[in-house]
Amino acid sequence: MAYDNDNIFAKILRGEIPCHKVFENDDVIAFMDVMPQGPGHTLVVPKAASRNLLDADPAVLGKLLPLVQKIALAVKEAFTADGVSIFQYNEAAGGQSVFHLHIHVVPRHEGVPLGRHSDTMEDQAVLAANAEKVRAALGA
Amino acid sequence: MAYDNDNIFAKILRGEIPCHKVFENDDVIAFMDVMPQGPGHTLVVPKAASRNLLDADPAVLGKLLPLVQKIALAVKEAFTADGVSIFQYNEAAGGQSVFHLHIHVVPRHEGVPLGRHSDTMEDQAVLAANAEKVRAALGA
Repeated sequence: MAYDNDNIFAKILRGEIPCHKVFENDDVIAFMDVMPQGPGHTLVVPKAASRNLLDADPAVLGKLLPLVQKIALAVKEAFTADGVSIFQYNEAAGGQSVFHLHIHVVPRHEGVPLGRHSDTMEDQAVLAANAEKVRAALGA
Repeated sequence: MAYDNDNIFAKILRGEIPCHKVFENDDVIAFMDVMPQGPGHTLVVPKAASRNLLDADPAVLGKLLPLVQKIALAVKEAFTADGVSIFQYNEAAGGQSVFHLHIHVVPRHEGVPLGRHSDTMEDQAVLAANAEKVRAALGA
């Protein structure tokens, strides 16, 4: 299937929709998931357009995982987490709901099960405060 | 925590334990998960030693995701899947059970929920047949 230029992450990348940004460079933007599976759930999104991992430019992918590591270390520190879970979904059957390549970075704590990806938005003030924690851990 | 040279994937990499291998190059080995969450569940494992994503060499990570893409496309074709889910777990709280960096690549089908990571081994003949399907899709 073709890439849809009007998906919500494309709109965020164009600045048409706001986000709680924690990191940006020439290649990626990272921001808080608005329907988090736990506090600190962050998304890493390449700026290059692809539907998901399956149709991405390998050169884009080559730059992506080191940045996911950087964000994972930051969210682990920011939320004093015991671990980090990384999820990346391809196509609806694979769990994907926004069709622009993105990687989920979820800080995890011992004994705390992963929350469900709800369909209600997290409070904006909570997201803003969490983004500030991640930015602080990144030294940004 | 320090890397444990006696983890099961280190033993597979040293050839001390067999695996149903589907791909190998200088950087990674890919083989069937013996406790799959669904048919075709494949693991991509960098040869370089690291506990997980958090302590990995960014240069190793730079080569990893393009290879995960290659394996994801192959398992999607091999199992005529509708999608692919990618999981990567860091530390026990993050879902990790073998402490050598690895990425789960799971072909998914519409309407089929993800299976649980069981504690019983899949039948070796089934794993061998599935590995052959992935190798065929890889043209190997």
